[in-house]
Amino acid sequence: MDLGDKISVLCGKTSYEGILMPSRSDNTVIKLKNGYNVGLRADKIELLEKGQSVSLPQKALHKREGLPQVSILSTGGTIASKVDYRTGAVTSQFSAGEIISAIPELEEIASYNARVIYTILSENMRAEYWIELARAVAAEIRSGSQGVIVTHGTDTMTYTAAALSFMIRTPVPIVMVGSQRSSDRPSSDAAMNAICAATVAVSDIAEVSLVMHAGTSDDYCSIHRGTRVRKMHTSRRDAFQSVNRQPIGRVDYLSRKIQTFGSYRRRGQTDLELSDRLEPRCALVKYVPGASSAILDYYVDAGYRGIVLEGTGLGHVSSEWIPSIKRAADAGIPVVVTSQCLRGRICDRVYDTGRYMLAAGAVEGRDMLPEVALVKMMWALGNTSGREEALEVMSRSMAGEISDSTPATV
Amino acid sequence: MDLGDKISVLCGKTSYEGILMPSRSDNTVIKLKNGYNVGLRADKIELLEKGQSVSLPQKALHKREGLPQVSILSTGGTIASKVDYRTGAVTSQFSAGEIISAIPELEEIASYNARVIYTILSENMRAEYWIELARAVAAEIRSGSQGVIVTHGTDTMTYTAAALSFMIRTPVPIVMVGSQRSSDRPSSDAAMNAICAATVAVSDIAEVSLVMHAGTSDDYCSIHRGTRVRKMHTSRRDAFQSVNRQPIGRVDYLSRKIQTFGSYRRRGQTDLELSDRLEPRCALVKYVPGASSAILDYYVDAGYRGIVLEGTGLGHVSSEWIPSIKRAADAGIPVVVTSQCLRGRICDRVYDTGRYMLAAGAVEGRDMLPEVALVKMMWALGNTSGREEALEVMSRSMAGEISDSTPATV
Repeated sequence: MDLGDKISVLCGKTSYEGILMPSRSDNTVIKLKNGYNVGLRADKIELLEKGQSVSLPQKALHKREGLPQVSILSTGGTIASKVDYRTGAVTSQFSAGEIISAIPELEEIASYNARVIYTILSENMRAEYWIELARAVAAEIRSGSQGVIVTHGTDTMTYTAAALSFMIRTPVPIVMVGSQRSSDRPSSDAAMNAICAATVAVSDIAEVSLVMHAGTSDDYCSIHRGTRVRKMHTSRRDAFQSVNRQPIGRVDYLSRKIQTFGSYRRRGQTDLELSDRLEPRCALVKYVPGASSAILDYYVDAGYRGIVLEGTGLGHVSSEWIPSIKRAADAGIPVVVTSQCLRGRICDRVYDTGRYMLAAGAVEGRDMLPEVALVKMMWALGNTSGREEALEVMSRSMAGEISDSTPATV
Repeated sequence: MDLGDKISVLCGKTSYEGILMPSRSDNTVIKLKNGYNVGLRADKIELLEKGQSVSLPQKALHKREGLPQVSILSTGGTIASKVDYRTGAVTSQFSAGEIISAIPELEEIASYNARVIYTILSENMRAEYWIELARAVAAEIRSGSQGVIVTHGTDTMTYTAAALSFMIRTPVPIVMVGSQRSSDRPSSDAAMNAICAATVAVSDIAEVSLVMHAGTSDDYCSIHRGTRVRKMHTSRRDAFQSVNRQPIGRVDYLSRKIQTFGSYRRRGQTDLELSDRLEPRCALVKYVPGASSAILDYYVDAGYRGIVLEGTGLGHVSSEWIPSIKRAADAGIPVVVTSQCLRGRICDRVYDTGRYMLAAGAVEGRDMLPEVALVKMMWALGNTSGREEALEVMSRSMAGEISDSTPATV
């Protein structure tokens, strides 16, 4: 049997007919006529018939009466990936149209138009792609889309979610979605995540959100705020967690009911605003014990324009770093302090070192995630005219990334 | 009233007599004669009497018959801190003897000898201090200590715990302990943590562990393995969590009963071994989207000897970094890949980028925490003669820092 072959097999007393799909496990995966994949233990099946090799079906997109219009912008990643036969590794090759074709329930929720923005693995993402993507999202909204879904590799999708959160004030939902296991695996979360994402895309939640598998059963997805979410596990399907704030809500997979946990911006509450300038020359510096402050000097000398420190505890670096912080500040470079603890709030007023850091010109990143603070720094420097103004932006909540108090339970 | 004054106050119908202590809240904190601190609302108390200012009581340490001999080595941090009257900030000033004096229950558990190794805030910790501390711990064990407690600032105590884990094979418990709130605050965890740490120090658990407040009530401390624990909140008392592995166990605060969750090295199971060489020229590089690979070249050119990458997801950096990884490897510098997800396991064999990283010479950090991998790299390079041998050490579990499989629940 070759990949792509049309086959018919017997497994126990049931027969299955469809196309042989790539599989990363020992299972034989067959795409059935109804669009679903089934994974069967290779040692339990018997080949009944082998037909001609076919290419993957791709449904034509057509407008469905009475359903809202949703755009799917594809950027690559596991939700849009299949195995590269040459190397055996997973690469990004599916188009948005193929995603819809593979998940028939999506067509019950909305009418779609689909565009491939780029096809890259998400670790190769960078500020210029965020800008291109933000412009594409805004164009879809201007063209009348009532919701936008962005499919994305899970590795850096939280960074992109943060970037879109700062760059776009949106009157409609913008939903990031991906999958932790590719759609040719029996345990794939691609279908559930896509269906929940589409449900949020037609909802009243006009924010940049990230909708992914949550919990240990396949029963719901969390709706994370784009500036408050982090990938907290390398491989689990429920890898994404909101940090320092409850998720916006959750979507029940079967009933497609949405439950919300707090306030959110509603559909139509704001006009579309795009501010698509970013300063990419920003660095995130994670402090570790004994690390030399020369790394700060390096970034200043290399022409970086903003620095986010990922300090220890309440927001500390070695007191030997104080002169280099002062040097950066004196060079007009904003330095914002976050914590490698990830959870909790920066407070540099308690211990000596923190007070000296503030005196040298560092500014507390409050309860922002380090990665979110980095993306915000790029945006703040892209949209202001200097250190003071950028620091003012960094200190205020622009897209829900800062709270005045952090609830004890998140 | 001045700090240090002997005072007598009335609060409601109860009178309190003791020494006025520093307080970071609005409460008035009084150290009572029994050694406990009481926090009273400043607006609810009436001063009855003000006596002479006294210095803090410091109990003489004496051997108590029938109790095991435990060493307390103090390095600074909140558990050993009080407010600096000059700046209003918290600084490290208490000695180990003062800790025992402040927590009378400790004397029910063991006989102590106490030494101040150094008095620094933990963000100023570095490899040379870890070496000094490891030697001091080993000296205590050689002198007959049946358990060693190391008091430490919480910011970097997990790094120090990892360093001691690799440097010492121990026949007795070595217990790191700190507190998230200083002992002059009513909500301080100093007493509970110290008592639980002493309980572990006289137990059968002959590992380097970190014993800290867990859960939301003041009912138990977790016993974390020194190579598997991370500070996951800036301020909460239950900030410390074991990652990718269950804690060794827990100590019930009131009953002082220990419950264990898996295997551990038992008292006397090994002889004392100290391997106290570390190569401090190691860097932890956290990858963020769009980051330039020039940072890798910087570390190579600056003479660093080992590099730990904190990549995205399963362990990725931009494919543009591949040549710099190869350049580092060609220069004889081991490059080990970990994940900023923190939880889960590195697998660079699934996606193209990971496979190219491995081909360039990077090595998977398996399920090691990034910070632990960095400390281990320092130790591996300090105790081997080159890249290949160091990478062999990095790939094996030396102190419980790697598992062959990661349980789904941690």
